[in-house]
Amino acid sequence: MPGDAALAVDVGGTRLRAALVDVEGRVMHRHAMLTPANEGAEAVVDAIATACRAVMAQCGAMKDLKLGLCAPGPLDARRGVALATPTIRGFTGFPLRQAVEEAVGLPAVIENDGPCAALGEWMCGAGRGAADFVYVTISTGIGGGIVSEGRLLRGRLGLAGHIGHIPIRPEGGATCFCGQPGCWEAEASGSALTRKAVAAGFAGLADAFAAAEAGESQAMAFAAAAAADIALGLAAVIHVLNPERIVIGGGVANALPLLGPMIRRNVDARVLPPFRGVDIVPAALGDDSGLAGAAQLVLRPGSAPAADEGLA
Amino acid sequence: MPGDAALAVDVGGTRLRAALVDVEGRVMHRHAMLTPANEGAEAVVDAIATACRAVMAQCGAMKDLKLGLCAPGPLDARRGVALATPTIRGFTGFPLRQAVEEAVGLPAVIENDGPCAALGEWMCGAGRGAADFVYVTISTGIGGGIVSEGRLLRGRLGLAGHIGHIPIRPEGGATCFCGQPGCWEAEASGSALTRKAVAAGFAGLADAFAAAEAGESQAMAFAAAAAADIALGLAAVIHVLNPERIVIGGGVANALPLLGPMIRRNVDARVLPPFRGVDIVPAALGDDSGLAGAAQLVLRPGSAPAADEGLA
Repeated sequence: MPGDAALAVDVGGTRLRAALVDVEGRVMHRHAMLTPANEGAEAVVDAIATACRAVMAQCGAMKDLKLGLCAPGPLDARRGVALATPTIRGFTGFPLRQAVEEAVGLPAVIENDGPCAALGEWMCGAGRGAADFVYVTISTGIGGGIVSEGRLLRGRLGLAGHIGHIPIRPEGGATCFCGQPGCWEAEASGSALTRKAVAAGFAGLADAFAAAEAGESQAMAFAAAAAADIALGLAAVIHVLNPERIVIGGGVANALPLLGPMIRRNVDARVLPPFRGVDIVPAALGDDSGLAGAAQLVLRPGSAPAADEGLA
Repeated sequence: MPGDAALAVDVGGTRLRAALVDVEGRVMHRHAMLTPANEGAEAVVDAIATACRAVMAQCGAMKDLKLGLCAPGPLDARRGVALATPTIRGFTGFPLRQAVEEAVGLPAVIENDGPCAALGEWMCGAGRGAADFVYVTISTGIGGGIVSEGRLLRGRLGLAGHIGHIPIRPEGGATCFCGQPGCWEAEASGSALTRKAVAAGFAGLADAFAAAEAGESQAMAFAAAAAADIALGLAAVIHVLNPERIVIGGGVANALPLLGPMIRRNVDARVLPPFRGVDIVPAALGDDSGLAGAAQLVLRPGSAPAADEGLA
């Protein structure tokens, strides 16, 4: 099925996954392993090659196979270089695309994980049919990808969508991974909410949300505060971009049956009247948004980052 | 010179200006008056017609003249309807484009003031040659317009760029015109800074900035705090959009020789390393960015908002 499927790789801070994925985002063969995040860039590339070979062994010989890969940003996707990735050691300045092409032996395209997952949801998931939507992943951090007027928005270096670093509580907020106080992700990511849940006496985030669903009053207050903090960053994004839909992925998306109505109420209270009523829906592809997007990078002409000539 | 110039109108909350403007943004004939902002939408349309007739009387008969107009948002530029404009009474739901066409007798295009000024600076001013830049006006409020990958970014209803309502201090911040606490414009607009300057004992904002330039220590602390608050919103915008340049207009732009280096330092301290070094420059067209953009709406094919079919 050359041309109909691609080798997709999603490098996360914790897990590394490779799969054969088709143009509809269907995942056909997959291999997952831990990311050797503290062992340097070469070890990560070796792991990528191992995972890819495992997938290729399952699906047999394929002509014209190409590889699409996403990894935590910031990556300069056009040049194929990792600029700085706080969660993976040795990635600063590393020529990731070239190293992967050599290790796997296939032509590759790379993309920042937020825009790549947005592409996956746009082409194959909950963003289908939307000309203006924002994908927001709320997990270890908060990341995102933007589709505006029918195009994946990248910005000068392809770094658009780093929405987790919107300052929402610059005085008195928690310190972010990036070193600054009160970034959105330092206040409302899965890790931030887990930290707050534990500080409030819950065993963890799932425990706090389960107690809130059972009507326990302290847990309900915790969930309300979490929804309010998630809404603050969404209000910023909505005023900047005027999207019709917000698609939420990452672990916290599992709590949307509980949090969704509260997030919506907080967003609508915070935004100017004409911005109210934005759809807020869970990602349709779950953990596979990134894999689906990585495959689209090579399967759909025009969806890959432009080549170097776009750079100054 | 039909085809080479357009009738441009910039409706502000305070002043209303009409002018004949060419494709390079040159303002040839102009007429300014006060906006009858409290007298209802019909009074504003009458004033627009009066200003336009004054300009047309100066420049003589012109065939094929068209009118481009910008006004404070949110406007649904595609449908030509004012959605809600807090600073102009009676504008909510008002069919502005049609009313102006009938009153002036020319075909018209309307646009939100932020994107329109961005268009003016992009085609004729400090945004020239930039594929990714954000125009930020810091005056009564804070508004903006976004150019991304060589396109004026509008969003679902053409409302993208309402960056003044990014929450930067949701707890303890000043109450915004919109009713919410701690919007960027409630903390860092010209009016907000004037209020803070007066509260700190200065005669006004210009007085505080002059004292800071003279090295007076309380004034220097005031200017540093102003620069820090301006930088917070810019950091949000930069992480969302990854622009190469920020163009600052509005009255506060006059203080950029003082504030610019401090704003730049604060922005670079706040953003992730690959986002550092964004150019922050003053608008080149001063008060005329909006007029220049309004003219481009009708003079440059493709720069006007798309017609209704883009709407859901």
